[in-house]
Amino acid sequence: MANNIEVVLSPALLHAHQVQHKTVVIIDILRATSSMCVAFETGVNKILPVAGLDECLLYREFDFLCAGERDAQKVEGFDLGNSPFEFTNPLLAGRNIAFTTTNGTKAIKMARSQGAAHILIGSFLNLDAVIKQLQAMQQDVVLLCAGWKDKVNLEDTLFAGALTSKLRQHLNTDCDAAISSALLYEQNSDRLVELVRQSSHARRFTMLDMQTDDVAFCLQQNICTKVPKLKGEYIFAS
Amino acid sequence: MANNIEVVLSPALLHAHQVQHKTVVIIDILRATSSMCVAFETGVNKILPVAGLDECLLYREFDFLCAGERDAQKVEGFDLGNSPFEFTNPLLAGRNIAFTTTNGTKAIKMARSQGAAHILIGSFLNLDAVIKQLQAMQQDVVLLCAGWKDKVNLEDTLFAGALTSKLRQHLNTDCDAAISSALLYEQNSDRLVELVRQSSHARRFTMLDMQTDDVAFCLQQNICTKVPKLKGEYIFAS
Repeated sequence: MANNIEVVLSPALLHAHQVQHKTVVIIDILRATSSMCVAFETGVNKILPVAGLDECLLYREFDFLCAGERDAQKVEGFDLGNSPFEFTNPLLAGRNIAFTTTNGTKAIKMARSQGAAHILIGSFLNLDAVIKQLQAMQQDVVLLCAGWKDKVNLEDTLFAGALTSKLRQHLNTDCDAAISSALLYEQNSDRLVELVRQSSHARRFTMLDMQTDDVAFCLQQNICTKVPKLKGEYIFAS
Repeated sequence: MANNIEVVLSPALLHAHQVQHKTVVIIDILRATSSMCVAFETGVNKILPVAGLDECLLYREFDFLCAGERDAQKVEGFDLGNSPFEFTNPLLAGRNIAFTTTNGTKAIKMARSQGAAHILIGSFLNLDAVIKQLQAMQQDVVLLCAGWKDKVNLEDTLFAGALTSKLRQHLNTDCDAAISSALLYEQNSDRLVELVRQSSHARRFTMLDMQTDDVAFCLQQNICTKVPKLKGEYIFAS
């Protein structure tokens, strides 16, 4: 019998879903999971997802670079922010990164504490690589959108929809959030950038005068070939 | 300046939204809010939303009829279930009903405890009446989907999308769930019944061998003219 796919549109909904023994894909398109995909493509060795800013800085002593954001802004004293453009720097090859973000790190930790068998990092940038790996794993799949401070957001929903849409031939879906996000993706796949630019998160970037190119960058498909995967405390490329 | 509209896809997401001093529309299309709309059209005097089954039965002594469901099934010893067809009985005119459902009652109580200024009951059946009332009230609006045991469901999302879509000219939206549910409704408005029949909740009905006509009935638009509204502990027609 085919395995199942479910979509969880916010970490605040995870308790309503069964996660144990399943593969969870963490989705934080703007920008944590997109940036992690870029980092491994650049050759980063491993990433440690960290909850707090102070904790993140502690890892400097162990030769980690500090990356992350609070409220979509770079943190003072950190080596890197959360824009994918920062993770293309070839000097990052072979380095370790301690990474903290508002929503992405929280989602990873929740999935782990609720007993997920495997935790993968997904983004439009490594879409096909994630699909290939999920097909090979033959497990039930939960797509966990990081959202924005527990609110549902458009870009994570669209990516969950893209994955569901492309996996539907192989996986069963009895989850309404999976059905609706797949429809949303399929019916708008020719204008994703336009749509996400209208969204609350992208508008937040504009207000903060940050790199609005991040939106266009993060909606590119398949420019990364690796699937970041949690092993113990760390994320490695797989 | 125009007022705002937000969509909350599950009661488990309500904490991420500000509800105080706003008008909240409770949405439980299959079937609590649809059945309440029908009840008032039939001439029911008032409805008391009640959390527990035992509490519901207590109100019998005060000349209330007991209505509701658990896990989409009628409760033993109750006068009425949760199917809208049961509320068309002309004998209900002038009667009071104590009503308990898995998700709808919970959503009403959450909106009240978080300080909503007004709480309205919405369904496809009274869509235009709700729109008219919201336009007249000129307040910020929060559309609260009751969902299914904290999970997002398709029929509530579609109705939230219908309301958002039709109110957009008059209200601002900086809520991604509002943007995405409006798109979902607009792009699928010609096949709502087909879509909802595929959904998890409707499939649950079929498995329980319940009235699958409920789906088609609850997706009819504007067969009811009244807007049920919470006043104190009770819901009255307005």
